[in-house]
Amino acid sequence: MRIIVAGGDGFCGWPTALYLSKQGHDVTIVDNLARRKIDNELHSNSVTPIASLEDRVAKWKEKTGKTIKTFIGDLNHYDFLCEVFRQVEPEAFVHFAEQRSAPYSMIDREHAVYTQSNNVIGNLNVLYAIKELAPECHLIKLGTMGEYGTPNIDIEEGYLEVEHKGRKDVVPYPKQPGSFYHLSKVHDSHNIMFACKVWGIRATDLNQGVVYGLHTEETEMDEQLVNRVDYDGVYGTALNRFITQAAIGHDLTVYGSGGQTRAFLNIEDTVRCVEIAAENPADRGEFRVFNQFTEWFSVQELAEKVQKVAAEENFNVELSHLDNPRVEAEDHYYHAVNTKLRDLGLEPHLLTDEVLRDILRTVVAHKDRIIKDNVLPSISWK
Amino acid sequence: MRIIVAGGDGFCGWPTALYLSKQGHDVTIVDNLARRKIDNELHSNSVTPIASLEDRVAKWKEKTGKTIKTFIGDLNHYDFLCEVFRQVEPEAFVHFAEQRSAPYSMIDREHAVYTQSNNVIGNLNVLYAIKELAPECHLIKLGTMGEYGTPNIDIEEGYLEVEHKGRKDVVPYPKQPGSFYHLSKVHDSHNIMFACKVWGIRATDLNQGVVYGLHTEETEMDEQLVNRVDYDGVYGTALNRFITQAAIGHDLTVYGSGGQTRAFLNIEDTVRCVEIAAENPADRGEFRVFNQFTEWFSVQELAEKVQKVAAEENFNVELSHLDNPRVEAEDHYYHAVNTKLRDLGLEPHLLTDEVLRDILRTVVAHKDRIIKDNVLPSISWK
Repeated sequence: MRIIVAGGDGFCGWPTALYLSKQGHDVTIVDNLARRKIDNELHSNSVTPIASLEDRVAKWKEKTGKTIKTFIGDLNHYDFLCEVFRQVEPEAFVHFAEQRSAPYSMIDREHAVYTQSNNVIGNLNVLYAIKELAPECHLIKLGTMGEYGTPNIDIEEGYLEVEHKGRKDVVPYPKQPGSFYHLSKVHDSHNIMFACKVWGIRATDLNQGVVYGLHTEETEMDEQLVNRVDYDGVYGTALNRFITQAAIGHDLTVYGSGGQTRAFLNIEDTVRCVEIAAENPADRGEFRVFNQFTEWFSVQELAEKVQKVAAEENFNVELSHLDNPRVEAEDHYYHAVNTKLRDLGLEPHLLTDEVLRDILRTVVAHKDRIIKDNVLPSISWK
Repeated sequence: MRIIVAGGDGFCGWPTALYLSKQGHDVTIVDNLARRKIDNELHSNSVTPIASLEDRVAKWKEKTGKTIKTFIGDLNHYDFLCEVFRQVEPEAFVHFAEQRSAPYSMIDREHAVYTQSNNVIGNLNVLYAIKELAPECHLIKLGTMGEYGTPNIDIEEGYLEVEHKGRKDVVPYPKQPGSFYHLSKVHDSHNIMFACKVWGIRATDLNQGVVYGLHTEETEMDEQLVNRVDYDGVYGTALNRFITQAAIGHDLTVYGSGGQTRAFLNIEDTVRCVEIAAENPADRGEFRVFNQFTEWFSVQELAEKVQKVAAEENFNVELSHLDNPRVEAEDHYYHAVNTKLRDLGLEPHLLTDEVLRDILRTVVAHKDRIIKDNVLPSISWK
């Protein structure tokens, strides 16, 4: 299948591109390299030293004989996007190419505006490109479980059956996102649903949990194929951040009481979920929503898991509770449905001690690269 | 009260600015004059000849002794917006300043992108300006009943009580908007709700029905104060469009079967609803939603009402049914709640034959200004 992976130089996009290429798909990466530029802006880095995109795909070719084409450019430039569509004639468009950090979107007005404009307009352009140039192309869009917030009822996969004043309907699941970033994904979901309805576009919205881990079978094939690992207070996701703190002997800093429960998955499941979506495309006009996660934990539980494994590896660290820089409920109901990807064949990699140990050892191996000033939160929601 | 009316040169904004000024409020208009520029772009016009904003406010001063300050500029220019906030120190910010035509947003990609970018980013800027410069200022934001779409259950005012799998919650009412314009308003609503939660902003979202009419007591005080009346297939709302067709002896063109039911209100109620919201501000942190309409009709009923009154005035016209240029249900349930504004004192002006006759006579008086090519729909959703 001819597949475009937009954002294919990023944390989720890169291993996904490799995995799909390995499975025999004809993969094209589109990326504006924004994530690398933001590293410069924030004076942050990946724990693992990552090669340039050019070197990455050259190494992949050398190792596997497989070609991944690359286009460096921005989805917000519609002429560029159309040219990519004309050359590739994609059958699936996997869309990771959005600003993906909630704290980054909350830095100030300019970062909020950048996040919503970049994400919403880029995605609108993708919808128009599919409509105009590749109407059969299946849009596989990365959303987030954070779109739902933490309602006091079960979180369903995109839709909710409602009975109200004696009448029934199935409606889009009401969203209560918690940052301008999460809001941008909600805006995207609404725009995509509408495009499916009026233009008959086929789309799958993958509401992904918090991703942890770094390796996949493919990224481990060579040092130059290694995935990035973010650990800073802006781009680092909770688990990777705790592991990095453990590696440098820093307290594991839990925001508030740590009672916030979130859905998680391993990067190895991310790549498989995208494959499952691609191999089982949505129908023309269908707006399909999958909740893409395998387990859920409170932030406190997560920190305790890391603390235990770290101690076994002789990194003894304490948990400490910081004033929560976010505005969010710390004690809430959480129960989310995730059966659709399982029904299509996903076999979860769960968060075992071995998985934690493997990430920890990788981080320790690159310990000297860690910028200690970056491990604490620096951005407040207020 | 110091009130900014953003979009105060437009169809709803102008009569609102006059009305609030008349009530003794200190009114400032902010407008980028986009609506006048779009007239040029679309080769369209107002049936009534409207004066420049400068002449309008000069005439208002002459007639009433009251000053309405004006700032010509764009909410998307944050420095400009901040300067306005610093000079005015607003206690209420009435936000009409968005691209408001569904067909315009559906012309092509560029118009969709313009609509969402202009509306969403402009509104984000307003939220930041309130947060940073006037935290007590009450945001009165114009939304639309079209945010809800046509669900098979009753439409409530912003929130829905849900019982699901034995648990209960009150959630944001699920939205199913029908154009990129309507989507932009949904995005705004989500952004505002979040800003209320994290920054304690006070906001009222007025989900307004389709507005008809043109005169208010204030706009009738002088020819130079007259309001604009749009009748074209892009900016004309259903009722004003039918009346204009009747005035030139054109068939009243109903889209599809005409079974689409929509909520309506008179422009005289628009101005009063805004006053009610301003005089009863939302609490700090409260995201309050009012459904701002007084009656609902199917498009077919509306056309028949116009046909009857037109015949009495010796304009005999037929109804004709066009292929629906929109993608929308033509036969659906519709029942929407609108008690909150009534409870606060709104006394509706209903759609009587007299009201129709008055609009028709005004249009007939300016009949020579009507560009006949513009009365049919020119933009398809597909």
